[in-house]
Amino acid sequence: MSGREFDIIEKYFASYISYKPSQVLLGPGDDCALLDVPEGQELSVSTDTLIEGVHFPFGSTANIVAHRSLCANLSDLAAMGACPFAFTLALTIPSEDDNWLEEFSATLGRLVGKYEIPLVGGNLARGPLSITLTVMGTAPKGTSIRRSGARVSDRVYVTGTLGDAAGGLRMLARDKQATGHLVDRYYYPTPRLETGLALRGMVSSAIDISDGLMADLGHICQASATGARIIVDDLPLSTALTNGFSLEEARDLALAAGDDYELCFTAPASVADRISTVARASGTIVTDIGEITDNGGVVLVDRAGHSVSVKDKGYQHFHEA
Amino acid sequence: MSGREFDIIEKYFASYISYKPSQVLLGPGDDCALLDVPEGQELSVSTDTLIEGVHFPFGSTANIVAHRSLCANLSDLAAMGACPFAFTLALTIPSEDDNWLEEFSATLGRLVGKYEIPLVGGNLARGPLSITLTVMGTAPKGTSIRRSGARVSDRVYVTGTLGDAAGGLRMLARDKQATGHLVDRYYYPTPRLETGLALRGMVSSAIDISDGLMADLGHICQASATGARIIVDDLPLSTALTNGFSLEEARDLALAAGDDYELCFTAPASVADRISTVARASGTIVTDIGEITDNGGVVLVDRAGHSVSVKDKGYQHFHEA
Repeated sequence: MSGREFDIIEKYFASYISYKPSQVLLGPGDDCALLDVPEGQELSVSTDTLIEGVHFPFGSTANIVAHRSLCANLSDLAAMGACPFAFTLALTIPSEDDNWLEEFSATLGRLVGKYEIPLVGGNLARGPLSITLTVMGTAPKGTSIRRSGARVSDRVYVTGTLGDAAGGLRMLARDKQATGHLVDRYYYPTPRLETGLALRGMVSSAIDISDGLMADLGHICQASATGARIIVDDLPLSTALTNGFSLEEARDLALAAGDDYELCFTAPASVADRISTVARASGTIVTDIGEITDNGGVVLVDRAGHSVSVKDKGYQHFHEA
Repeated sequence: MSGREFDIIEKYFASYISYKPSQVLLGPGDDCALLDVPEGQELSVSTDTLIEGVHFPFGSTANIVAHRSLCANLSDLAAMGACPFAFTLALTIPSEDDNWLEEFSATLGRLVGKYEIPLVGGNLARGPLSITLTVMGTAPKGTSIRRSGARVSDRVYVTGTLGDAAGGLRMLARDKQATGHLVDRYYYPTPRLETGLALRGMVSSAIDISDGLMADLGHICQASATGARIIVDDLPLSTALTNGFSLEEARDLALAAGDDYELCFTAPASVADRISTVARASGTIVTDIGEITDNGGVVLVDRAGHSVSVKDKGYQHFHEA
């Protein structure tokens, strides 16, 4: 870390650093941060890059960039049922813009407090705007929720409502100044951390929906060597989405578009009531949308059991820029 | 992680993943990797971004990019005296170039084996070439080497020779096809991991020289609330450097230019013999270049004690692009 870089990080980010002294033995400013992982815990680690023009629109405010970056990464911890532990930030910015950095760090600081996750290391470089975060979480050994645990006849659930973020993005494509619930759902995703924690020990598998329900549930099925049958009539759709789009469009967005950062998880039918109660207490609804089958792939049906098709099967950041 | 992205990571990087099953409970492919930090150990964490055209020349081979990225990051672990534990890779590439990815992953795989550090998570995105690594290391609790431990009258040491990488970069600026020892020192830095491990418990502070000796020793002095007096006649210079540059140029490069990734560390004079022995056994020489003082800042003198000046005091990636 160069002197100048260090000065910038000190100036904007120092106050979010020693947030949890019991687990951060040494914060940024040395060659490494030093962390104390409590005994008996396993460490979850995930890294994600968000690039301007690919993962958020050109010209997004620093507030949006900070929010989406941290919350998309925290969503990976939520899907493991992990408790936030620490994160590092590698920020690449085209120029040293004081206003931008102040807004970015203010939002980050607010979220650091809200989700109780200290910033323990950073890197600052100059280039096209991109943000790479590495988040770490903890859970008692053996309790993290993996993708591979789904079993035939498990129920399939999702938190919240689906398709909202993609609906918001479609509205922004029409009108850059668009506002409202759907746009907010795209700009300011909510990581389902409390829900993930509450579901630990109760569910058989989980994933966060970043690439679309079909694709992400497909990952669960692949890892668990199962299939899944989804009843499209049961997909939870917000009023905002069904007001803004036809039912067919809304379903397609809910099935195939990413960025909702809701959780998709599976559990035996026997715990259905407990799941519903626990999820509500954690601040979200859960909806039973189908079941795990022994056939490969994710199959869509209506309530009468007739096959339903969807135009697009998943969202691929890499081919979108 | 999208399906396509996942396929690419599986294709090129899967074989480096489950390298240390005892500590990697779950490798890439889930929302998070799961790591088992051994009891009694503290976790070192560092993140660094390398961008084409800033941290390595445009058109560098994938081999060079992989080597510099991982070794520059491992150098931060070396400076803490930490044992490599795991790392994540966030790779942003302009296009999916099979040859490039094959070469990059082959080099990375070789280094993963050499330094015994498993790749536990990844992200792949499209954009201008940049690589962000987050490396993790372990050391018994309380034994990691910090920057803040230097004490007045401690000796100041460096490993290896200084200025080589900057000499190589200067040669490349004159001739992009330049080859030889200095160019290799720039392209293929050696992280002093074994030396860092061997010095643990013996030295009072350490840092890796990425921004130049003056700047990096300055960080030690700042963190330790000390000064330092360096005898410029004692700086270890390679024959390749003194053959290629005037003595004054060579000294300036050794003092002010970065990218050597040697270690600078401090220790009481009483352990000088042990340090020399231990460092040699770990594969490098160490040189006593001066002492820690109670005056702020890094002061340069010749052997007669006369003040010496240097043109440039440190290397700042951020203003170089």
